[in-house]
Amino acid sequence: MTTSRFEVIGIPGIPMVRPGDNLVDLISTALADIGESLQDTDIVCVAQKIISKAEGRLVRLADVKPSAAAIELALETDKDPQLVELILSESDEVLRKKPGVLIVRHKRGFVMANAGVDQSNVDHAEGDQALLLPLDPDASAATLRRELKAKCGADVGVVITDSANRPWRLGTTSIAIGAAGITVLDDRRGETDVYGRELKVTMLNNADAIATAATMVLGETVEKIPVAIIRGLQVSGDGQNASIINRPLEDDLFR
Amino acid sequence: MTTSRFEVIGIPGIPMVRPGDNLVDLISTALADIGESLQDTDIVCVAQKIISKAEGRLVRLADVKPSAAAIELALETDKDPQLVELILSESDEVLRKKPGVLIVRHKRGFVMANAGVDQSNVDHAEGDQALLLPLDPDASAATLRRELKAKCGADVGVVITDSANRPWRLGTTSIAIGAAGITVLDDRRGETDVYGRELKVTMLNNADAIATAATMVLGETVEKIPVAIIRGLQVSGDGQNASIINRPLEDDLFR
Repeated sequence: MTTSRFEVIGIPGIPMVRPGDNLVDLISTALADIGESLQDTDIVCVAQKIISKAEGRLVRLADVKPSAAAIELALETDKDPQLVELILSESDEVLRKKPGVLIVRHKRGFVMANAGVDQSNVDHAEGDQALLLPLDPDASAATLRRELKAKCGADVGVVITDSANRPWRLGTTSIAIGAAGITVLDDRRGETDVYGRELKVTMLNNADAIATAATMVLGETVEKIPVAIIRGLQVSGDGQNASIINRPLEDDLFR
Repeated sequence: MTTSRFEVIGIPGIPMVRPGDNLVDLISTALADIGESLQDTDIVCVAQKIISKAEGRLVRLADVKPSAAAIELALETDKDPQLVELILSESDEVLRKKPGVLIVRHKRGFVMANAGVDQSNVDHAEGDQALLLPLDPDASAATLRRELKAKCGADVGVVITDSANRPWRLGTTSIAIGAAGITVLDDRRGETDVYGRELKVTMLNNADAIATAATMVLGETVEKIPVAIIRGLQVSGDGQNASIINRPLEDDLFR
């Protein structure tokens, strides 16, 4: 990477997103309102929450019928059975459980609490609802990238961010659950250090680093600033998506 | 957090660091050379490697006598027995091992590969050497912060960064192994979302996010750009250091 400086710009002014909303219109209007426009190599970071909302991934808990397994797991984890049913329906595997904690492998391969099913920043006026991850976050990122190009003319990268907890370390950072138009994993195997010895770090995770940098302006109140632009990083690339980040199961030492 | 934009600035021009070097002098000279000066609330991110080198944490492998346990573990992990001896001497607990992989809990509480003991970007001209983490990275950060204030007049935060691998996700990001002058964990428990419901994410890890953002300009060739300034983030704070990030052992689900 040759970049030596870059900027992270939070984009305010995006209204509450509803199912069917056109995010490209909302983003381009918000950019214009603060006198910004997209440039080639910009990376548009979008909080998962507004992608999910635009794609209609809200589910009314009253419509969910919990299975026997969900009811049992809800008792073990002190969670709502309908919520647990949703979590299980989104997951391939439960990794850890204890009261208040349910860590699973999402069908898309991400290991995360509650399969990303979330009830914060969701309108519960007409009954409790929960928001699921986008059906295919990489496809959502690719679509957004293509539509931003069509609308704004700029060849940008897109990263869909989600906050995530980690083993051993308190406090959330973020991960990329979807990506398009960037080099997600910068593979440097075979390169050497200044003394000619093989590098210790051979693969940099650009996508998660970008998501985490964006989080510093998104924070959790993503309803207020759900989009950030990263400008100046030279990580353009094609053909990699965020699913390549998932470590192969056979290399997983922490199942 | 009220920040809506910030900048990450790589600082080139710092020479190869040797034991006893004064990092404050090296950093302030490098800043002057590119026409930059430190401002209040800047966060100075420094790669662990140059802190360790300045503090003389290089060890000649020829001087290390491996124990029987180190020899056995070296066989299991296909690593050098002297290197394994160093790793064990820096660690409290081995979490996972397999050929090529040794994941431990460092005496300072960080879970990491090889206890951070590293042979890349180290001069081996006079025999194989390895570099250990700073003895007390939080103390190193506090000292650097104090000395930068004395030398440059600015009230900055300091984060000492190290690259780190994670379970389940390929590609390295970074963690903060030392911090001073910033709010390391932004505790938002009790705050509510836009609909009045408790926030899903209640503690943001500013320090790791800052370290990871800095990594995008540091890369692995930290000998070339071992320092980055983060400008515009409002995360000043006192009294928190990076050791508070370590999740309490009793809450650790992945030992």
